[in-house]
Amino acid sequence: MTNPTDSNIEVFDTTLRDGGQSEAVSFSVEDKLHLAEALDHLGVDFIEGGWPGANPRDDAFFEAARERTLRHARLLAFGSTMRSGNTPAQDPVLSGLVAAGPDGAVIFGKAWDLHVELGLGIGLEENLALVRDSVAYLKEQLGVVLFDAEHFFDGYANHPDYALRVLEAAADGGADRLVLCDTNGGGLPAQIGAAVDAVRERLPGEVLGIHCHNDGGLAVANTLAAVEHGVRHVQGTLNGLGERCGNADLTAILPNLILKLGYRGAQLGPEELERLTATSRLVDELANRSPRNNQPFVGQSAFAHKGGVHVSAVRKDARTYEHIAPEAVGNVRRILVSDQSGRSNIVHKLQELGLLDRLEGNDAAVAQVVERIKDLEHQGYQFEGADASFELVVRRVIGDLPEYFRLVGFRVLDAKRHAGEAPESEATVMLEVGGERAHTAGTGNGPVNALDHALRKALVGFYPELREMDLVDFKVRVVSAGGGTDAAVRVLIESGDPHEHWGTVGVSANVIEASYQALVDAVTYKLAKNGRSDHLLAGGVVEQASGSGLDEG
Amino acid sequence: MTNPTDSNIEVFDTTLRDGGQSEAVSFSVEDKLHLAEALDHLGVDFIEGGWPGANPRDDAFFEAARERTLRHARLLAFGSTMRSGNTPAQDPVLSGLVAAGPDGAVIFGKAWDLHVELGLGIGLEENLALVRDSVAYLKEQLGVVLFDAEHFFDGYANHPDYALRVLEAAADGGADRLVLCDTNGGGLPAQIGAAVDAVRERLPGEVLGIHCHNDGGLAVANTLAAVEHGVRHVQGTLNGLGERCGNADLTAILPNLILKLGYRGAQLGPEELERLTATSRLVDELANRSPRNNQPFVGQSAFAHKGGVHVSAVRKDARTYEHIAPEAVGNVRRILVSDQSGRSNIVHKLQELGLLDRLEGNDAAVAQVVERIKDLEHQGYQFEGADASFELVVRRVIGDLPEYFRLVGFRVLDAKRHAGEAPESEATVMLEVGGERAHTAGTGNGPVNALDHALRKALVGFYPELREMDLVDFKVRVVSAGGGTDAAVRVLIESGDPHEHWGTVGVSANVIEASYQALVDAVTYKLAKNGRSDHLLAGGVVEQASGSGLDEG
Repeated sequence: MTNPTDSNIEVFDTTLRDGGQSEAVSFSVEDKLHLAEALDHLGVDFIEGGWPGANPRDDAFFEAARERTLRHARLLAFGSTMRSGNTPAQDPVLSGLVAAGPDGAVIFGKAWDLHVELGLGIGLEENLALVRDSVAYLKEQLGVVLFDAEHFFDGYANHPDYALRVLEAAADGGADRLVLCDTNGGGLPAQIGAAVDAVRERLPGEVLGIHCHNDGGLAVANTLAAVEHGVRHVQGTLNGLGERCGNADLTAILPNLILKLGYRGAQLGPEELERLTATSRLVDELANRSPRNNQPFVGQSAFAHKGGVHVSAVRKDARTYEHIAPEAVGNVRRILVSDQSGRSNIVHKLQELGLLDRLEGNDAAVAQVVERIKDLEHQGYQFEGADASFELVVRRVIGDLPEYFRLVGFRVLDAKRHAGEAPESEATVMLEVGGERAHTAGTGNGPVNALDHALRKALVGFYPELREMDLVDFKVRVVSAGGGTDAAVRVLIESGDPHEHWGTVGVSANVIEASYQALVDAVTYKLAKNGRSDHLLAGGVVEQASGSGLDEG
Repeated sequence: MTNPTDSNIEVFDTTLRDGGQSEAVSFSVEDKLHLAEALDHLGVDFIEGGWPGANPRDDAFFEAARERTLRHARLLAFGSTMRSGNTPAQDPVLSGLVAAGPDGAVIFGKAWDLHVELGLGIGLEENLALVRDSVAYLKEQLGVVLFDAEHFFDGYANHPDYALRVLEAAADGGADRLVLCDTNGGGLPAQIGAAVDAVRERLPGEVLGIHCHNDGGLAVANTLAAVEHGVRHVQGTLNGLGERCGNADLTAILPNLILKLGYRGAQLGPEELERLTATSRLVDELANRSPRNNQPFVGQSAFAHKGGVHVSAVRKDARTYEHIAPEAVGNVRRILVSDQSGRSNIVHKLQELGLLDRLEGNDAAVAQVVERIKDLEHQGYQFEGADASFELVVRRVIGDLPEYFRLVGFRVLDAKRHAGEAPESEATVMLEVGGERAHTAGTGNGPVNALDHALRKALVGFYPELREMDLVDFKVRVVSAGGGTDAAVRVLIESGDPHEHWGTVGVSANVIEASYQALVDAVTYKLAKNGRSDHLLAGGVVEQASGSGLDEG
C-alpha cells in the first residue's frame, strides 16, 4: 500500500460501521451497498464496512460486496485483537475477518492501561503480545492491516509510555497505519497535537491516522489539529453519524482540509468535493433521518441569507457574507423571504424559483408581488419553509393559476363524549368543482386530519393524481404571542409525491382555517405542477366524486 | 464595570438576538422574557436582548424587561454604529439604543475594509470616526458599551493594520470590551489564535471578546483557541442557535472551559453548570425546535450506551466510556437496552421543584412517580416547559390533589359558511362541579379559544380566582413526524396571574384534546396553588354558573 505524500491526505470513512452505531440508525444490507458506491464515487480511500462475525447483517454485506467492484476505495472489515489464550488462526474474531474476504482489516486494541486491566482483565505485557500477534496474522492473511489504538489519547494522558508501546507492538506486527483514537470524544485540540508530536518522535517512520468522537463538540477541530501535527490518515463519518454525539464529521473535515488548507485525497480533490452535499443528503435519506438544516457546508441553511443588508452585499461580492462558494461543496445559496426582507430578497427568490422569467419586463407585476408578499408577511405568513405557497402567490398575482375548485363551506366537529376517551373528529366539505357541487365527509383522529380526508375525497375523483400525494410533516406555531389562545397560528405543511417535497403555509386565528389554507395550497401546487388546466371548474367529467360516501375514514 | 481576572471568563449570551436569526426560529416577547430569566439563573454575565428600533417586538421586549429585575446578568441592547452624516445625538440607531433603557449597549462596526467600501460606501478614515464617536456617545449615555468588530478576522487577514485601527478607534471612544467577530464563520483555530496575539500586542490593556459563527464547524474550537490566547469575554448562543450554521454553542463552550480548562464565570461555575441541560431544552422548547439528540454534553444521546461491553465497563468505572460525568451538566446516563433512563433526572427535578420533601422516605412513591413520568414521556409528553403539569403528575400519584371538577364531555364545532370568511368556532362543555352539572357554551376565534371560554364559564362561578388568570402563550408541535396530519401533537400552554407564570402540557393525536388537557392542567394548577380544597366537587355553592348564557364570547 502506498503512503500518502505530505500534501495528500487519506480519507477513511466509517459511516457504515461506526455510523451505524448512532441511536435509531440502522442500515440494511442494501443501504450499505448503496452507500459504499456513493462513498467510492465521492473519492474516499477506505470504507469500513462492518464487523463480520459480530452480526449476520455485516456477514451478508461482505458477501454481497464481493460481487461488486469499487472504482477506487478499499473495503475494510473491522474487528478486535484476538482473545487472550487463543492462537491467531483459531481466534473466532480474526478468522471472521479473514473469511469475509475484504480488501484489508482494521482491528482495535486497548491503548489505555485502565481498559486492559478493567476491561480485558489481563496483564499489560500480554496485551502488547495480543496486539502484535493479531496484526501480524492479519497482515499475512490479508496484506493490509490498520490498527486502531482505542482510547489512545486517554491512555497517553494516563500512562504515556504504555500507550506508545501499544503502537510499537502494532508497528512490530506490520500494521500499515497506526490510528490514534479519541474514543470517548473528550480531547482538546492542544492535547491531541501534543500527543501526536510525541508519537511522531517515538515512531518517526509510521503513517499515523486520527479517529475522533464529538463528545466535546471538537471532533472536527481535533482532526484538523492532528493533521497540522503531521497525521495524514483521517477517519470520520458523513454527517457525523455515530454513537452518543457521533464521530468526526467528514462533511466538515473535508472542505476545511481541501478548500482552506490545500490538502487533497488521492481521488478526492476540489472537483469531487462538489458531490459532498448530495452524498450527505443520501446518507440521511438512507439513515431515515431529517437532514440538519444548520449543518456546516452541506445544510440547507448553510448559505441562507435573511434581511436586506446581507442580501445586497452578497450580490455585490459573495465574500462579504460567505466563507466559501456554496457550489464548491455542491450546496446552493438561498435568499430567505422573511419579515425583514426587502425587495431584493423577493426578487432573488423569484429568480431562484425560476419565476422571474414569467415577470420579465413587467415591473408593475414585480412590484405587485413584492407588495403582496410583504402584506402576507405582516399578517404572519412566513415563506421560508413554504416555497410552494410562495410560487402560488406569484402565480395568483399574475393571473397564471387555474382555479381548480371553489370552496362553498366546511364544518368540523370534535366531540368528546366520555372523560376517558379521545374525541371523535368529523368534517364535511362542500366544493364547486367541474361545474357541480361536491359534498363529502371524512373522519379522522383530529380535526385537521378529518378535514384533509374530506377535502381529498371531494377532489380525487376529478384529479386522480392526488392519490399519489401524501402529507409528510405538519407544524403549528403561534405567530403573535401575548394573546393566549386568541393569538394567530401559522401552520406549515410539507407534502410529497414520488418526485418531490413541497411546503405550504396558512395563517389564521383559527388553527382549522390555517390548516385548511395550507392543505388547499398543497393540493393546488400538486395540480399546477402536473400542468392541470382549470377546465374542470367550468364543467367537465364529474359524477363519481360528488356526494361520495360517509363510510370511509 | 470590573474586568475578569485571568482565571475567570465573562459569559455573554446572544440567544435572544443572534439566536433569533435562525431560520424558522422566532421568539415572542414572552419567550424572550422567560429566556432572559433562565439565562440569568444559569449565571451568564450579559444577555443581548435584541435590536430596539429595528423591530417592534424588540421594543416591546425592552419595555417589558424594565419592569423585571435580573439577579445578576446585565441586559444589553444591540445596534450599529451611526450613519455617515449624522451626529450621535440625532442618529436614530443610537437614540433607539438609549431610549430602550438597557444596562448597556453593544454596537457593531465594520473592521474589514472591503465592507467599509462596498457596504457602507464611505472612506476608511470616516469609518474610524463613526466607530469612535458612536462608542463615546453611548458610553456617556449608558455607561457600558461593548464594541463588536464585525468581520474582524477576515479584515485582519485582508488588511491587518486597518482592522487593528478600528479596534483602536473603539478603545479611544471608551469601549469596555473589544469583541473580535468571525462573522462569516470560516476561521480556523490557528488563524484565530494568531490574530488574537496581534491584537494583544497592539492593545495590551484592553479586555478582548470573541464571537464566532459555525460555518466551518469550528466555532467552539475557535472560541477555545481565542481563550487560550488571552481572550476572556466569550460570546455564543445556547444550542448554537443563529443564522446559517449558527453561532458558537455555549452548551459546548462552557463545559469545556469550566470542567476541562478550569475557568469559571463570575456567577457560573461547576454548580450552575448542572442547570445546562435543562436550560438547553427550554431554549429548544421555546424555539419550537426538536432538540438534537447527539448534541455534545446536553443531547439525549450524549451519555447513551448501547448494551454489552460498554455498559459493564461504564458500571465498573464511568471514565472508561465517558469523558465527563453526565450529572456535571445536568444530563443523565442512558443505557439503551435496559431502559434504566431517567430516574436520577426525575429525582433531580423533584428536588428542584421542592417536591422531594413531600415524598421523603417514601421510596415506593418516588418509584411510582418515576414510572408515571417515563410512561408519559414515552407517549410524547415533555415537562421541560411544563413544570406545572409535572407538579400535578406528582401530586396525583401521591393523592395530594383535590378533584376540582370532572368532565362529562365537550363538543367543538368549526363552521366556515363562506369562502371569504373565517370559520366560527363554538364549544360546549359539560362538567360535574359542586355536586351539580354545569353545561356551558362559548365561542371563540378558533376551537381552542372557544373551548377555553366554555371551560372557564363553567368554572368561574365556583372559583372566582380564575378571573385573574390569563393564557399567555400557546405552542403546538408535532411529536412524531412522518405521519402527516396523523401524527401526535404536543400542546404547551403558558398561563399567568399577577403573581407568576406556569406551563402545562397535553398530548394527543387530536389537537383539540391535547389543548384541553393543557387547559385543564393550567386551571387545576391555579386552583391548587391558591390552596383550594375539593369540597366543591362534593357539593357547595353552585347555581350561578350552571347553564350560563350562550351570548358571551
